[in-house]
Amino acid sequence: MDTYHTIISKRDTRAFLEKPVPDDVVRRIVQAGRMAGSSKNTQPCRFVIIDDQRVKEEFAACGDFATWIPQAPLVVAIAVIGGTRAEFDAGRAAQNMMVAAWAEDVGSCPISLHRQTCAVEALGLPGDAGVPVAVGFGYRARPPKSVPEAARLPWDDYAHHNRWHGDS
Amino acid sequence: MDTYHTIISKRDTRAFLEKPVPDDVVRRIVQAGRMAGSSKNTQPCRFVIIDDQRVKEEFAACGDFATWIPQAPLVVAIAVIGGTRAEFDAGRAAQNMMVAAWAEDVGSCPISLHRQTCAVEALGLPGDAGVPVAVGFGYRARPPKSVPEAARLPWDDYAHHNRWHGDS
Repeated sequence: MDTYHTIISKRDTRAFLEKPVPDDVVRRIVQAGRMAGSSKNTQPCRFVIIDDQRVKEEFAACGDFATWIPQAPLVVAIAVIGGTRAEFDAGRAAQNMMVAAWAEDVGSCPISLHRQTCAVEALGLPGDAGVPVAVGFGYRARPPKSVPEAARLPWDDYAHHNRWHGDS
Repeated sequence: MDTYHTIISKRDTRAFLEKPVPDDVVRRIVQAGRMAGSSKNTQPCRFVIIDDQRVKEEFAACGDFATWIPQAPLVVAIAVIGGTRAEFDAGRAAQNMMVAAWAEDVGSCPISLHRQTCAVEALGLPGDAGVPVAVGFGYRARPPKSVPEAARLPWDDYAHHNRWHGDS
C-alpha cells in the first residue's frame, strides 16, 4: 500500500490480539517518531517503550480513559522535557509512529494522561517532564470496518479556500 | 518509496520552486489531514488552503518567523474551532499532510502564528477559533542533503525501556 493510502486508511484501534509486536517493528515505530521534525529542531520529545505489565498498569492508572492500555502489547509514552508543552510536536511524533505501525498492520490509539504527576512518577521521568500522551499499539483484534473512509465531517466543512467559507 | 522510508526521510523545507502544487496533490494533502484521528473524533481542526498572494502576505505578517510563507506556493492554515487548543490533534493532522506531500516530492515546514488575533482576522475565522500552526508546501528549491538521516540526538537519548534510563 502506498504512503497516501496508508495514511488515509489508518483507524484508531484500542482492541488488540495478545501477539507481541516484534522488536524490529518496535524499532521502526520509534525511529519514525524520532525522525519527526520539531520546532527549530529542539527535539522536545522522548519515548518510553513500555512492555512490562506492571509498569503498564501503574501508568494506565494515571489516565481517566486508559483502562485498555494494559491490554496493548506495546505502549509508547511520549514525554516532553525541558519544561515545554510541545503538544504540537508530540502530535507530529505520535502520528509518524502510528502511520509507520499501520503500514505493518499494527493498529494504535493515543491516550491522554490526566494525572501528570502520576504519569511522571510511574515512568521515573525528570521532574520538569510532561507526558501529554501515550500510544497503545498492537495487532488488531478485529478487522477494520469495510467502509471507504473514517467518519468525518463533509469536505466543505474541513476545507476552506483563502478565507473561512471563502471563494470555493 | 514505502511508507516507512517516506516518513523517516522527510525533511522540513522552507525554500521552494515557484512551480504550483497541482490541484489533485493539494486535494490528497488536505484529505490526509482530514483523515487524521482526533480525540474522541471531535474533529477540532479545519484547513484554510491559501494560494492568494495577498492573503498569504497578510497571514504571514501574523508570525515572527513567517517571512518565507508568501514564497510557498501553497499554504495550509490549521485552524481549531470550538474554543479548544487541540495542538496535539493539529500536530497529527499536520504530520499526515506533510508526509502525504513528501510522498509526492512536495516539501513542507510548519510555522507558528504568534499573533493569534491577526491570524484569525486575516482568514476571517470565527472569533473562538485559533490557528496554532500553518504549513507551507512546495517543490523543493534544493535537493535534500545526502546524509543518511536528519540531525537527531542519539537513539539512547530518545528511547527508554519501561522507565526513564530504564532496563536497556
